[in-house]
Amino acid sequence: MSSIPRPAEPAHPEDSALPPISIQDVRRAAERIAPYAHRTPLLTSATMDALSGARLFFKCENLQRVGAFKFRGAANAVFSLDEATARRGVATHSSGNHAQALALAARLRGIAATIVMPEDAPKVKVQAVRGYGARIVFSGSAPLDRERMLDDVLRETGAEFVHPSDDPRVIAGQGTCALEILQEQPDLDLVITPVGGGGLLGGTAIAVRGASRARVIGAEPAAADDAWRSFTTGRLHPAGSPKTIADGLRTSLGRNTFPLVRGLVSDIVTTSEEAIVSAMRLVWERMKVVIEPSAAVPLAAILEGKLDVRGSRAALIFSGGNVDLDLLPWLRT
Amino acid sequence: MSSIPRPAEPAHPEDSALPPISIQDVRRAAERIAPYAHRTPLLTSATMDALSGARLFFKCENLQRVGAFKFRGAANAVFSLDEATARRGVATHSSGNHAQALALAARLRGIAATIVMPEDAPKVKVQAVRGYGARIVFSGSAPLDRERMLDDVLRETGAEFVHPSDDPRVIAGQGTCALEILQEQPDLDLVITPVGGGGLLGGTAIAVRGASRARVIGAEPAAADDAWRSFTTGRLHPAGSPKTIADGLRTSLGRNTFPLVRGLVSDIVTTSEEAIVSAMRLVWERMKVVIEPSAAVPLAAILEGKLDVRGSRAALIFSGGNVDLDLLPWLRT
Repeated sequence: MSSIPRPAEPAHPEDSALPPISIQDVRRAAERIAPYAHRTPLLTSATMDALSGARLFFKCENLQRVGAFKFRGAANAVFSLDEATARRGVATHSSGNHAQALALAARLRGIAATIVMPEDAPKVKVQAVRGYGARIVFSGSAPLDRERMLDDVLRETGAEFVHPSDDPRVIAGQGTCALEILQEQPDLDLVITPVGGGGLLGGTAIAVRGASRARVIGAEPAAADDAWRSFTTGRLHPAGSPKTIADGLRTSLGRNTFPLVRGLVSDIVTTSEEAIVSAMRLVWERMKVVIEPSAAVPLAAILEGKLDVRGSRAALIFSGGNVDLDLLPWLRT
Repeated sequence: MSSIPRPAEPAHPEDSALPPISIQDVRRAAERIAPYAHRTPLLTSATMDALSGARLFFKCENLQRVGAFKFRGAANAVFSLDEATARRGVATHSSGNHAQALALAARLRGIAATIVMPEDAPKVKVQAVRGYGARIVFSGSAPLDRERMLDDVLRETGAEFVHPSDDPRVIAGQGTCALEILQEQPDLDLVITPVGGGGLLGGTAIAVRGASRARVIGAEPAAADDAWRSFTTGRLHPAGSPKTIADGLRTSLGRNTFPLVRGLVSDIVTTSEEAIVSAMRLVWERMKVVIEPSAAVPLAAILEGKLDVRGSRAALIFSGGNVDLDLLPWLRT
């Protein structure tokens, strides 16, 4: 059960200064990306309702373009650039869904994208990014190597950096998902998202707090509980190199997402690796949608008893569906 | 490419007598099942459009209750019974999705369901049917054993028999799926469904031919091409015991579905086992939905070049998503 009290006062006053993103930015982002993004379905499941004792709504961002909500933020960033800036292209560092998202968004606008990826990134991800026409620059796998390489790219190309989670345009874009949820189900008690870098959680919090009475909760692997620690202590904790199957959630909150999460989110809950795999499999089996481990984290927290939703109406965001079908976690020996 | 001419004249005049099902029956079925069935999403995919050269719409009946379109027909049959008949319960023979569908529909109406299943039916399917509260009676696996056992059940209980595909109430119920497709996309050239017993194809044909200018096409595994043979020769061919991974399509057309298919369907195309597995995997990977092999057959026919859809607007029905996640066809050794 959820029992982490939200600190009444931020430990550091500067932490509570929200970055300048409002629900108006989220609404503008929704208009901006509407021609490009899928409006994804909001599913219900009698099985999940019975297991949770709640009325659950699942927003299927695994069915979003590039298979993840990340397309929303990347598209908002790319399509809000002025012409002169856009002409110099965009760049980022990512080996995950943001890499594909930025590559596709750039292709749709007809501008260049450069993605810095660690040289040990899975081949399938490298190919996917290349498939969208982006240039890939390989770096060492340490964060410092990656950032140095990105700096070189930015200097060389003049490209606009679009951070995977901490860019305000990205945060506003991720919030558009919650707007769609609320259009279909205005009367919710809770909205629960996975939390890694905090772009989805922060954007969701802006949209939900600005447009409804629902509370917003983040769910995180216990093995990568830096957001929980940051939220609870009021100091930004780095992620380190957490070992979790939820590969989308290994990053930490940032300068912009941390104050949003602190200021607008009601709670952060954590869940075990076993619960994540078992929730993921249950969703494939009973709901017939392919979700990646990160996307299973909110449901895992509920089914593991880390978050009591009984009697409530709660929306969960299935954040992505990019998995290697040859390496399913329940088949690993 | 599709090149099978539709015979101009049925070989046997009595074959062309359509069973008494009209689009009005389908519309009434839609109203009847609306409180119970999911309205499933119609997805698009830039990848599938690029691969096919068409604009494709995928109706996700894998996200229907019990994970298959079969719930529509079973619910229509169960909820159209008068009180006295309903009180005696319903019965069927099925080891597939119809078994679960009828069990759930009966539970929702609060009446008894008896399902005759072969004693070698997969445990997981037996458990699922039991989970919906139905009584299971085991029979030998030969069709004759099964029918004898069902006769015993019907005599003993007075239950109403609901055939998995050839019952007119079931056919009308399956047609409701196409009505939803046409509500979202009225301007289609083609609607393509898998064909086994012909309940989905027949019901779809009634709905589509009655409400649009689109043509209807059935897709079938080449290894179980009895519907293609029946369609082409004008004589009802039994399925025998076909060896195909598409386990939902091993049955043959029936007395009611055959004339519907002959009269209203424009073509039946067949596709290989390899193409079915590869289309199934592609859908999981790129569209992030879990479909069973039978559901992949229409897309397989397109991607294998057995059906030319280039330049057209075509809807495909993902008929179901019930698979054993421990036994994925691309992981079998």
